[in-house]
Amino acid sequence: MQIVSLAKRKSGNWRGNWKSFGRSVFRTADGTFHHAVAPVLLLGQCISLLPVVNVFSVNFRSTRFKARSIRCAISLVYLLMAGLYSVLSIRWYIRRGLNMSYFANCIYMIVVYVSAIFFFLVAMRWQTILGAFAHCERSFLKEQYRRLTQGTWGSLMWKIRFTGFTLFALAMAEDWLNFYRAYESNIIQIETCNRTNVTLWENFYLREHPHVFHLVPFNVFTIGVTEWINRCMRYTWTYLDIFIISFSYGAQFRYEQIFRRLLATEGMACPINFWSELRMDYVAVSELVTFLDDHFGHLVLLACANDMYFIATQLFNGFQRRRAFANYIYFWYSLLLLIFRTVTMLYVGSGVYVASMRPLHLLRNISSKNWGIDLQRLTDEVSSGENVLSGKQFFFLKRQIILAMAGTLVTYELVLLDQVKKIPDTALDCSYF
Amino acid sequence: MQIVSLAKRKSGNWRGNWKSFGRSVFRTADGTFHHAVAPVLLLGQCISLLPVVNVFSVNFRSTRFKARSIRCAISLVYLLMAGLYSVLSIRWYIRRGLNMSYFANCIYMIVVYVSAIFFFLVAMRWQTILGAFAHCERSFLKEQYRRLTQGTWGSLMWKIRFTGFTLFALAMAEDWLNFYRAYESNIIQIETCNRTNVTLWENFYLREHPHVFHLVPFNVFTIGVTEWINRCMRYTWTYLDIFIISFSYGAQFRYEQIFRRLLATEGMACPINFWSELRMDYVAVSELVTFLDDHFGHLVLLACANDMYFIATQLFNGFQRRRAFANYIYFWYSLLLLIFRTVTMLYVGSGVYVASMRPLHLLRNISSKNWGIDLQRLTDEVSSGENVLSGKQFFFLKRQIILAMAGTLVTYELVLLDQVKKIPDTALDCSYF
Amino acid sequence: MQIVSLAKRKSGNWRGNWKSFGRSVFRTADGTFHHAVAPVLLLGQCISLLPVVNVFSVNFRSTRFKARSIRCAISLVYLLMAGLYSVLSIRWYIRRGLNMSYFANCIYMIVVYVSAIFFFLVAMRWQTILGAFAHCERSFLKEQYRRLTQGTWGSLMWKIRFTGFTLFALAMAEDWLNFYRAYESNIIQIETCNRTNVTLWENFYLREHPHVFHLVPFNVFTIGVTEWINRCMRYTWTYLDIFIISFSYGAQFRYEQIFRRLLATEGMACPINFWSELRMDYVAVSELVTFLDDHFGHLVLLACANDMYFIATQLFNGFQRRRAFANYIYFWYSLLLLIFRTVTMLYVGSGVYVASMRPLHLLRNISSKNWGIDLQRLTDEVSSGENVLSGKQFFFLKRQIILAMAGTLVTYELVLLDQVKKIPDTALDCSYF
Amino acid sequence: MQIVSLAKRKSGNWRGNWKSFGRSVFRTADGTFHHAVAPVLLLGQCISLLPVVNVFSVNFRSTRFKARSIRCAISLVYLLMAGLYSVLSIRWYIRRGLNMSYFANCIYMIVVYVSAIFFFLVAMRWQTILGAFAHCERSFLKEQYRRLTQGTWGSLMWKIRFTGFTLFALAMAEDWLNFYRAYESNIIQIETCNRTNVTLWENFYLREHPHVFHLVPFNVFTIGVTEWINRCMRYTWTYLDIFIISFSYGAQFRYEQIFRRLLATEGMACPINFWSELRMDYVAVSELVTFLDDHFGHLVLLACANDMYFIATQLFNGFQRRRAFANYIYFWYSLLLLIFRTVTMLYVGSGVYVASMRPLHLLRNISSKNWGIDLQRLTDEVSSGENVLSGKQFFFLKRQIILAMAGTLVTYELVLLDQVKKIPDTALDCSYF
Repeated sequence: MQIVSLAKRKSGNWRGNWKSFGRSVFRTADGTFHHAVAPVLLLGQCISLLPVVNVFSVNFRSTRFKARSIRCAISLVYLLMAGLYSVLSIRWYIRRGLNMSYFANCIYMIVVYVSAIFFFLVAMRWQTILGAFAHCERSFLKEQYRRLTQGTWGSLMWKIRFTGFTLFALAMAEDWLNFYRAYESNIIQIETCNRTNVTLWENFYLREHPHVFHLVPFNVFTIGVTEWINRCMRYTWTYLDIFIISFSYGAQFRYEQIFRRLLATEGMACPINFWSELRMDYVAVSELVTFLDDHFGHLVLLACANDMYFIATQLFNGFQRRRAFANYIYFWYSLLLLIFRTVTMLYVGSGVYVASMRPLHLLRNISSKNWGIDLQRLTDEVSSGENVLSGKQFFFLKRQIILAMAGTLVTYELVLLDQVKKIPDTALDCSYF
Repeated sequence: MQIVSLAKRKSGNWRGNWKSFGRSVFRTADGTFHHAVAPVLLLGQCISLLPVVNVFSVNFRSTRFKARSIRCAISLVYLLMAGLYSVLSIRWYIRRGLNMSYFANCIYMIVVYVSAIFFFLVAMRWQTILGAFAHCERSFLKEQYRRLTQGTWGSLMWKIRFTGFTLFALAMAEDWLNFYRAYESNIIQIETCNRTNVTLWENFYLREHPHVFHLVPFNVFTIGVTEWINRCMRYTWTYLDIFIISFSYGAQFRYEQIFRRLLATEGMACPINFWSELRMDYVAVSELVTFLDDHFGHLVLLACANDMYFIATQLFNGFQRRRAFANYIYFWYSLLLLIFRTVTMLYVGSGVYVASMRPLHLLRNISSKNWGIDLQRLTDEVSSGENVLSGKQFFFLKRQIILAMAGTLVTYELVLLDQVKKIPDTALDCSYF
Repeated sequence: MQIVSLAKRKSGNWRGNWKSFGRSVFRTADGTFHHAVAPVLLLGQCISLLPVVNVFSVNFRSTRFKARSIRCAISLVYLLMAGLYSVLSIRWYIRRGLNMSYFANCIYMIVVYVSAIFFFLVAMRWQTILGAFAHCERSFLKEQYRRLTQGTWGSLMWKIRFTGFTLFALAMAEDWLNFYRAYESNIIQIETCNRTNVTLWENFYLREHPHVFHLVPFNVFTIGVTEWINRCMRYTWTYLDIFIISFSYGAQFRYEQIFRRLLATEGMACPINFWSELRMDYVAVSELVTFLDDHFGHLVLLACANDMYFIATQLFNGFQRRRAFANYIYFWYSLLLLIFRTVTMLYVGSGVYVASMRPLHLLRNISSKNWGIDLQRLTDEVSSGENVLSGKQFFFLKRQIILAMAGTLVTYELVLLDQVKKIPDTALDCSYF
Repeated sequence: MQIVSLAKRKSGNWRGNWKSFGRSVFRTADGTFHHAVAPVLLLGQCISLLPVVNVFSVNFRSTRFKARSIRCAISLVYLLMAGLYSVLSIRWYIRRGLNMSYFANCIYMIVVYVSAIFFFLVAMRWQTILGAFAHCERSFLKEQYRRLTQGTWGSLMWKIRFTGFTLFALAMAEDWLNFYRAYESNIIQIETCNRTNVTLWENFYLREHPHVFHLVPFNVFTIGVTEWINRCMRYTWTYLDIFIISFSYGAQFRYEQIFRRLLATEGMACPINFWSELRMDYVAVSELVTFLDDHFGHLVLLACANDMYFIATQLFNGFQRRRAFANYIYFWYSLLLLIFRTVTMLYVGSGVYVASMRPLHLLRNISSKNWGIDLQRLTDEVSSGENVLSGKQFFFLKRQIILAMAGTLVTYELVLLDQVKKIPDTALDCSYF
């Protein structure tokens, strides 16, 4: 096996990649998490995250972190440049006096940069993670489970890819709206300030990234790099939620398969063996959940804290701004998208818990004649309610958390209602730096 | 059986309906939820909700959604008109500037309209729902349970009908008070503004529905339709709570029957068979609760969110208004009724949980000599505390929720105490639109 | 036995009462709740509550509600007069404009009056309640439990009587401080206002009860009655907490006895019989707790709500008043006593839960060789955590409730900090009504 | 054994102490809590707390409280002097008018003094405490557990000592910063106020302790004593958290050993004996946790309440102060250290709970073939979730508590945002008293 995998690794060059890409994306779903998550992984690599090679390989063992690959190099360059960019920006904000909006920007920079580092570390452990999934999925790929989950719409692949790409598309629309808003604002500003020495695009980029261009010469290359870093950072935040949704679906789907198998055997008298096997399957998924909780708990914590902070800040801003129409549209689209993304992430994350509890009433329905030690233990394990993702155990992803967060946000906003003051509109400010 | 049910369905015409109505309402209670809830269903149909036919039929299978029935047509017309009415109203409110009171009205419109759609969907699934109840009730209609629940006052029928009709009557009294208040206010306004070109009633309806009559010609027909839509929407909100109370009683009553049967056999040495049967009955009710939770969870969520929002808004208004006596009476009656209705709904809803836990100390009292696998499992199932209704699992209807809601409301009100400002009295405003 | 109890009841006349009083109070404790609570009951009767006869009788069955007794007559007269007094007072407060302090007084009147009615109802059920205690205590009075709880300080009698009478004495000291404060204030007022037509005491009572004496003629009899009602109402509030503490100790003590018995047998190999018996004892106490929860839940709810409301109000007043020294002392003594009483009540009440959980780690220590069905069930019952008093299940008396209440109070006070305004000192107001 | 221990006690003189000190600190870790905590204990004795003798003795039985020892004498003198110092300080603060900052100082004095008394009481029970640890640790020192926890970094000794000394060193840095800040401030003040009659150091100490030196003559001896008391009190607060961390690690480490042993035997078929033994080990640790909870619960309560109060106060001060750079650095270092210390303490404390739950999924993985009564009981005990430290059961040290505390703090700060006012800078105040 060593040899085979070595051979695979060797063939993992540029052309081989593309071949396997073609075959993989359109081949029949094999039902593994590895296969389902591959395009989402590629999406991450488009924004310089998760540098693993052979993401579309049939065998999950060849998908791994490779220090001497182009992807890894891009990621490292990105981390370096983004770090520099963040430090410069934060320095710029502190110098201009740290008001609430600037402070939020600093938090955003730090969170996104920390996320990027976390994703790099995740990439380094990617093979272990896929291994944990594969270990759990072994029995779920067998016939007895597969035939219960026919149909495109309910498949794991469809769920992960659809949710991930939808959220990403919505984020791209937001990005475009932001671009349009800034473009409009620049046209107005050029007219107001009677600028004749700069073109529209020069003005645009100078106003977008003053913290960079008062240090770095202004040319096509620097603009390109700055925009690339900026884009990557912007999408990293969204990608964090997409990533959490992906592995949540990965675990939740297995619980659902167990539920469906139980449903299919309802009323039958099953042999002791069957229950023993089913229990081991259930325990395997629970172990996977514990593994995910251990390895991604800090990502969940980071994502929730960040989303909460920005919803609170934006809601607060919602009270005070009266702006131009393009700004207005962008603001509310952006806020609603943020809330939608957060709720989706929490909903899918807490879906793991809900799915883990669903078999309970089927188990209760089983006649006591067929009762045994395995059924007793399985019931105990299902009803324990401990198969749940968490943010490093500081909070647990159950449905109630959504209400708790909403309640806390409402309290904060009501308390802050007194602090609402008009902040000056910066649209017509003619200075760059 | 197919034939019989077909025959029944055929005879479900107008006259047959009334005959069965007479027989059903006054016939001896057969103890099913179907029979108990029938008049509440009819009540819903009076306000254009829940278009199912044969509600008073003896066999629950003939009570079903029928697309080509008059009731369904009325419901669909109502949904169409109410949608139009809501859109017009919300547009009107937004145009006039969205203050707190107008915003609350918009929320009210949306919630009521969404409820109406939900009720239409419930009607389409009504046979499934009655089927789930009937499946659970099979063994509860037998002699061993029936003889324990004699007496009118404790019967399921009496509970559902009494609570439902009392709440509805209180809502009608509120409606009348509102009408009286508006009538008084119109007399004053006509005098103040020296209107001679309009009669009292013209003035009345013009001021009540300005959003309609500045678009639609003002005549008896349009007034009638507007009032009909208005009445239906008004009562839909109350009906939402009544409906939740009804099915909560339906589940709670079965747990109580199990409790009474256990009480009756306390101290006796029962055969293993007895416990096995009792456990299956308990599990059947728990399954029903899970079914109800799945199918009506969004109704519970909607009702609680809406009630909470309006109690908060009205309490806040309570601080700021100093008004005429008729207004004063109406305001406090309306607020107290809202609180009473909400608490009743939460109390009855959480009663399911309380009733599901009651058998516990009787089971603990049983001597270990008679212990067995069924008793052990039954004890586990009772003590698990998972037989509870919820609002899509965001919150659970236990008694504590009432205190939690009250505490949250008090906090919000105290925080908002700073924001109290006098709003101008609109009673003497002479413009219509 | 019927005859004996009848004979007892007959001898329950005045002289017999006093004889049994002498014998009972000083006789060796028999360990029953009935015996321990008797003086506390008598204390209640001093303030016209709980009219049951033969409180010191040896046999609990002769302690009962008797409609045709002097105590019952006194209670009924008190209820009538206090009702009248409350209505008059509330009318008076509403007429003078319902500010925060007057509103608190109205709440106080209503709560105290409702408590008095509740206590009357409790008295009517007193025999049932003592019966429930006696049923539970049967096996705890046997030798195997008694010898483990020697010593005065740990006995149930001592705990109930000491806590009850201490709290009552502290309340009397508060009453005296209030009297002294009012007396001082009157001397000052007479001097300031140059009153020569009234004596000091006339002035005193006129200012204390203006709501009574502007309707009723002012003479010794009316003063006496007013003061009597006033005293009784004042102490009723304290008595409510004392009563809750008493029955909490009654249940808690039994759990402690079970714990001590377990402790005494630690490490021994006990026969199955022993565990079966112990389990039934534990279940009996749990049943008692459920019984108490059902019958006194509304008292707990009332006491907690009232205490919370008054702590909040008084803390808020604490921010705004700068007063004379006597007022200052009275205010803080009164507030600290209120907090102390509330915390004591919650602590003792939640002690039932703590005591019910204590046997757990002793049960875990038992070797699996001696394991059996009874031990398993006992462990399940202990660890279930459901043996807990509650306020009608809206909240549960666990230790955490104290922190939750404190946290809520702090939040409310911080939020209300904005509303603090100076209220005028009424000490020098010369008008009576 | 009595004789041996007596002989040991006799040899516990000055020189013997130092010899055993040399041998003990550098001898190979024997893995006991007694050995691990010894230097932390010595650290406590440096600030006059925990007067027990023979802290480095090999046999824990010779480490005990000795009334007639120098350490005990020092502690008693310290308690006396610190009491006097606190009373004088509080009197001084009250006389100068109790503003928010002075009030916080009073709370600090009282809490520190109460802690010192608690530590004295802990010292008196120290042998019992070590006994409880030793009782639990008996089987954990055997070969089967020891070989699983090789390596310096993971050992109990290293954890306790490293965390304790790191926190202490950070506190010393804070102390030095405070000293530096006061020194700078004095130089400025002397220049501003043109003081020529005092030296810098006289001015320094007069300004630091005005509450002492307006009563006590100003000389080297009184300065020394005041500074000693001041230092001890300052570090006592930090030491409280260090102490809680130490014993939390003591319990947590044993759970981890059980987890590792389970991990080592995963997949093997173990004899019934093995499980019975393992269960007893687990129960022994749980008993230790209950013991620690009983004996140190008030310390946890005190530490948390105090830390919470000071974080709230300091955060609030953070909004209002705009100060000199040295003050600025000191303020933020001090606040961040306080938060870090509190979070560390809560994290380690809640680590006991986390460690107690970790074996759960390993137990679930065990095949039902090897299932037995001991495994069932062990699973029940692990999953019960009751092996947790608490603050007298008012709150439980789980991970969620950190989020709950943070949330509460944020709410309080937001509510208090309205109250922020500029307080005058006292740096240039020329009066001493």
